[in-house]
Amino acid sequence: MAQIPLKSVTQTVQRILHKSGYSPEETAIISDVLMYAQMRGNNQGIVKLIGAGLPRNPNCRPPSIVHQTPISARIDGGGSIGMVVAHYALTVALEHAREQGFALVGTFNSNSSTGAIGYYAGQAAQAGYIGFVFAGSGEYVAPHGAYQPLFGTNPLAVGVPTAGKPIVLDMATSAIARYGIIEAQTAGQTLPEGVAYDAAGSPTTDPTAALAGAIRTFGGHKGGGLALMVELLTGALVGTSRHADGRKADWGTLTMLIDPTLLTDRDGFIERVQQVTGLVKDAKRLPDMDEILLPGERGDRQYERVVASGVIEIEERLWDALQAAAAG
Amino acid sequence: MAQIPLKSVTQTVQRILHKSGYSPEETAIISDVLMYAQMRGNNQGIVKLIGAGLPRNPNCRPPSIVHQTPISARIDGGGSIGMVVAHYALTVALEHAREQGFALVGTFNSNSSTGAIGYYAGQAAQAGYIGFVFAGSGEYVAPHGAYQPLFGTNPLAVGVPTAGKPIVLDMATSAIARYGIIEAQTAGQTLPEGVAYDAAGSPTTDPTAALAGAIRTFGGHKGGGLALMVELLTGALVGTSRHADGRKADWGTLTMLIDPTLLTDRDGFIERVQQVTGLVKDAKRLPDMDEILLPGERGDRQYERVVASGVIEIEERLWDALQAAAAG
Repeated sequence: MAQIPLKSVTQTVQRILHKSGYSPEETAIISDVLMYAQMRGNNQGIVKLIGAGLPRNPNCRPPSIVHQTPISARIDGGGSIGMVVAHYALTVALEHAREQGFALVGTFNSNSSTGAIGYYAGQAAQAGYIGFVFAGSGEYVAPHGAYQPLFGTNPLAVGVPTAGKPIVLDMATSAIARYGIIEAQTAGQTLPEGVAYDAAGSPTTDPTAALAGAIRTFGGHKGGGLALMVELLTGALVGTSRHADGRKADWGTLTMLIDPTLLTDRDGFIERVQQVTGLVKDAKRLPDMDEILLPGERGDRQYERVVASGVIEIEERLWDALQAAAAG
Repeated sequence: MAQIPLKSVTQTVQRILHKSGYSPEETAIISDVLMYAQMRGNNQGIVKLIGAGLPRNPNCRPPSIVHQTPISARIDGGGSIGMVVAHYALTVALEHAREQGFALVGTFNSNSSTGAIGYYAGQAAQAGYIGFVFAGSGEYVAPHGAYQPLFGTNPLAVGVPTAGKPIVLDMATSAIARYGIIEAQTAGQTLPEGVAYDAAGSPTTDPTAALAGAIRTFGGHKGGGLALMVELLTGALVGTSRHADGRKADWGTLTMLIDPTLLTDRDGFIERVQQVTGLVKDAKRLPDMDEILLPGERGDRQYERVVASGVIEIEERLWDALQAAAAG
């Protein structure tokens, strides 16, 4: 691992995005989402910029609202990059939620990564809402019991306001994130057992074989059921479309914000959240556990360490590839 | 296993409920929820009537709305049984959703089982909504990494309308449902490995030791994160309370209905759902899989078989215990 000044990494990321054709505004959004993930040790970070990278779609239009009610909006992503679309969806959702206490915002017509969706769920929670974010993607993951890739890695994120930092659960409903596989491939590592199949349906730990095959859903039939539900929420519900052969033509996201005051008072809500998290942190631990961590807590700490030190640890091959991309 | 006429089982259930103090209307609701589970092979069925059973709280009041907005309601369960409260919550949610396309309904002040929450999510989907139902309960499940019971089994259910039967995912976020343990205890069976701890935090397969210890959350840290989120949604958000020592004084539920037309047209939505389920059913299967089943599909089939045959298969000790309860 190389120790790189945070500033150099951010500048390198922004240089690559600029070279990829993004406007300064788009670059700021994308860089922020990528660095959020990278600084938290989440694999939705700057690994996205290597290999094919994130070239700007030359035909994209800015995302725009195509249907709207007081509590909902459907957004045409205009072929823009997922992070720009998801950022816009959050902005629209926050406007509706401020007025109505609730917002349901769906997007379609993008086909690139939204990045770590905990970023958006966390911002929603910072603004005082319980934020749910779901993101669809291409055919990478097999339904439970199958080895044919049909689903996206279908992450779901939930952000919950607290008196301090929000609690943010951000999890793929696949056994491993697709960028986790790309990261392993880049680092020359094998995958954990039981997360992927090769193209013939045999279990594999080879990242390259896995990318040609299918990722598994997590957590047995329950995780498989959740993966299907995220597929429906980010596809059927938001109105993405398919080619004549059934393959996805675009990807979608769903953002849902809930103001706790729809049901109870805010202070009481925050107090009850604190009480639960306090009980959890203090719970009797299993012998091999030093500490009970809340969702997102490990990432929060890593983020703070990076900010405090001004230095970020990056796998050397990844940093080399990034510098090449920035220079090339 | 004994083969019992469906009618005899229903009559026995209703006799027990009548003897437990329920009104005819309450009996109809509770019997319907219990038989739904039993006929689907779900462990939230008539096992609930044996042992301590489901005595009516003599001090309960009917559930009532204590706070309301056009899109939300908070319901005081009045100490009524969870099934009556959840049924009322669904009724209120359907009224709001019909007007607004969305409903968020929370309940508190009940401390007994809601039964299989797929029942309510399925009814929501039958009515045309995407239905989410979350249910809290007592201190049965340890947070991920701990062995101290703090959470309920915290099931979540999602119902999605289709052109035919809804798709209904109904899953505990615990590794096993509490009634799965009671069922194993009643049948004199051991538990699967890895689902429970005894009171000292050692893994156990003994149902009695597990009931004195804690159930695990499902699916590693992801399932653990979901369990915490359901805990917050059914506790902090709906406003349940705790005794001075931190233990739960009551339990809560959250019901959320989403009209797909908030985002797109209904026909297109249904068509896209059918397309996804068609692709999933036809996906290339792993060698040991005869068929890819959608969430709830196995239960649907079992339900239909019971209806068609008029006969239901029940573990003999359970049937004996039920008959004793009805007679005693």
